[in-house]
Amino acid sequence: MMKTAEVFVIIEKPQVNMEENIMNIKEVAAKMKLESSSMASTPIDLRNTALLKVKESLLAKKESIFTANNTDLEVAKENNISQAVFKRLKFDEHKLNDVAAGIDELIKLEDPVGKTLLARQLDEDLTLYRQSCPIGVIGVIFEARPDALIQISSLCIKSGNCAILKGGSETLHTNKAIFDIIYEAITSVGLPEGALFQVEAREDINTLLECDKYVDLLIPRGSNEFVQYIMNNTKIPVMGHADGICHIYVDKECDIEKIVPVVVDAKIQYPAACNAIETLLVHREVAAAFLPKLKAAFDEKNVNIRGTKDVMEIIDCEEACEEDFATEYLNLMISIKLVDSIDEAITHINKYGSHHTDGIMTENSDTAAKFLNLVDSAGVYQNCSTRFADGFRYGFGAEVGISTSKLHARGPVGLEGLVTYKYKLFGNGHIVDDYSTGKKNFHFKDLA
Amino acid sequence: MMKTAEVFVIIEKPQVNMEENIMNIKEVAAKMKLESSSMASTPIDLRNTALLKVKESLLAKKESIFTANNTDLEVAKENNISQAVFKRLKFDEHKLNDVAAGIDELIKLEDPVGKTLLARQLDEDLTLYRQSCPIGVIGVIFEARPDALIQISSLCIKSGNCAILKGGSETLHTNKAIFDIIYEAITSVGLPEGALFQVEAREDINTLLECDKYVDLLIPRGSNEFVQYIMNNTKIPVMGHADGICHIYVDKECDIEKIVPVVVDAKIQYPAACNAIETLLVHREVAAAFLPKLKAAFDEKNVNIRGTKDVMEIIDCEEACEEDFATEYLNLMISIKLVDSIDEAITHINKYGSHHTDGIMTENSDTAAKFLNLVDSAGVYQNCSTRFADGFRYGFGAEVGISTSKLHARGPVGLEGLVTYKYKLFGNGHIVDDYSTGKKNFHFKDLA
Repeated sequence: MMKTAEVFVIIEKPQVNMEENIMNIKEVAAKMKLESSSMASTPIDLRNTALLKVKESLLAKKESIFTANNTDLEVAKENNISQAVFKRLKFDEHKLNDVAAGIDELIKLEDPVGKTLLARQLDEDLTLYRQSCPIGVIGVIFEARPDALIQISSLCIKSGNCAILKGGSETLHTNKAIFDIIYEAITSVGLPEGALFQVEAREDINTLLECDKYVDLLIPRGSNEFVQYIMNNTKIPVMGHADGICHIYVDKECDIEKIVPVVVDAKIQYPAACNAIETLLVHREVAAAFLPKLKAAFDEKNVNIRGTKDVMEIIDCEEACEEDFATEYLNLMISIKLVDSIDEAITHINKYGSHHTDGIMTENSDTAAKFLNLVDSAGVYQNCSTRFADGFRYGFGAEVGISTSKLHARGPVGLEGLVTYKYKLFGNGHIVDDYSTGKKNFHFKDLA
Repeated sequence: MMKTAEVFVIIEKPQVNMEENIMNIKEVAAKMKLESSSMASTPIDLRNTALLKVKESLLAKKESIFTANNTDLEVAKENNISQAVFKRLKFDEHKLNDVAAGIDELIKLEDPVGKTLLARQLDEDLTLYRQSCPIGVIGVIFEARPDALIQISSLCIKSGNCAILKGGSETLHTNKAIFDIIYEAITSVGLPEGALFQVEAREDINTLLECDKYVDLLIPRGSNEFVQYIMNNTKIPVMGHADGICHIYVDKECDIEKIVPVVVDAKIQYPAACNAIETLLVHREVAAAFLPKLKAAFDEKNVNIRGTKDVMEIIDCEEACEEDFATEYLNLMISIKLVDSIDEAITHINKYGSHHTDGIMTENSDTAAKFLNLVDSAGVYQNCSTRFADGFRYGFGAEVGISTSKLHARGPVGLEGLVTYKYKLFGNGHIVDDYSTGKKNFHFKDLA
């Protein structure tokens, strides 16, 4: 999940009748909830047909999308939007082809719905199955990236969920054009009318947060502050991430030549991403040999260093204070601390980290195993960049986000995070009283 | 999870220094959080040894438990506690043997920790594993049942979690005696000191709710109101259930002789349980033949019926109003409604039900399949009593509770609900920049 603190700035405030709109969102959500069972039981062939139709329609009607996107880009220019945000807003032939290829990949993936996760005979003629099924109604609030709208709706369609979608306001026109094409495509092949709904006004987010009777899960993407705001203002379960304070620990038994490029990649390959590192922990024994080499590499990339006093004795840098270790810089700043042992490194990470992704650089596999077991994070890496924490790089196809929660889904979340399960029990007049009184006994036999 | 609305009444208010105690709970939780990684990485042999030692110690020191239990029972008598609660408070030889047998079963269960859930080569020398691991620190607030304390701590030990436990105040003395034995047993074999902590004062619950930095999951058991209170007053993820409004739908293609005992069992075998039914939906075509037989059986068991007008035309009963269908009676009352089709039944259940457990009585397997797919509940049953919704009856050993949430764990929750997973990635100096620039490509190969 990209860090895009600037994304939720309102560029254009749509005119809406608040009162009327509040009724609308709640009504839509209530209707969707009732229709979610139909959506959940659509056969995989229909869901894949819908995805194919979405892809074909997007390609066939691309000019209308590009025209709408130009309108958004004009507004963005007038508002002097930053180059980085502008790049995300722009939706061109290249990005269209990428999402089209993504849909093809998604179609090929196995159906996440209806998998038998457990089959157990409890007694003669009394058989229990645990089967995967869609979560139901999912609300996704995401950053101003037109490709995100396509990826997220595709994931929801594939997993049999109904979805209420709210994209960043900067892509209002593009999103409307894209959503209309997607909606027409999926309903034309027979998916329920309540399968997807797009919310356009920012004000509607607060109404959506009140729909805890109808919405089963909220997935907010965007800045920390935004995700925290959502978590603090709704009774709906939220899957999101808080901070992304990631670490690399350089062990004493390391290969210094191997480390420098990894640390540089983890810091600068995309500093605004949540899986970029903020703090480097270095074993005291290798500090003198390693830090000057790192400093030279960082200087070349304009990375600023804040180090503890003992770091300052080895390389030229600013002084780091306690607060630095709890800060997600999201820019070309890094804090460096020396430690006396792997245990000190692990304790530091578990205390200051955000349980996102943390790595160790070591050639000793026992040391690595200890680090990977004891560091309490969604991703724990040996000898590679933390930037690999991403659904695509894990081979999940697209991702709906990265979860730093420990419940339900952890780390990059693809289709599996969008399903739950239900227990189906088949009997023949079986009653519990027979088992309570000892007339019958369970025999629990797992079926192949 | 049993419905025990009366359980959280305070009988005896322990005298505590509030200020000092608030510090204590938070300090304990913070310390536990730091130690949770050590607990998580204990080998299964040690966790099983600890469980065996717990069992042996409880059996060896049973007299001290019974003495403490007598004190609680005396207090309960003075407070004119109801017979049902008194029965739950009492901890005797029989219950001790039951929990001892339960611990033996738990020891035999496979280790839920360290299972490889995914193994995938992303590229040459870059390999990803998804491995199950404990959640970390779990807070469990449970009803006044001494056996619950033993079951819950055993489940937490087996799953490698640290736990903060708070039992009903009516079992204060018994819980103290039991907890001291358990704690001495597990630390004597080498589990971390921070593995378990018992909270004794009811006031401490609110302090526990503030420990969102240290506690990963809360499991409240007790009345609806209590669970809702917890959910509304903490930022910690909560696994619990809201209402238990369960249904049975009697289809037109049913075997009437088979239905009556199932419906009676589902209603009266334990009316105060969340998996007892509150509403019966009957297809209009079989109502005249079925209802009089049911009425006769219910009369024998003193079950009171509230029916819609068309039900009242067939059998003698009170009139049901809209509100009845949204009510969890938890007693010998049942509401009955006639429906024209299975679709009407499904819509009713998805609208008024609590997504806990709902059954259909039909001899037509296509009809059953439709019901089981479209009803959006944790348990969906054909031709058996809803009372089977229980961890023991599903063969999970003990359960920590029943979840009506759709996320993380659904239905009866055993060991599997107490673990999460982490991603371990092993590389050899791999950086993301090589894949962004196209210098390298992922090849995603799942390993056997």
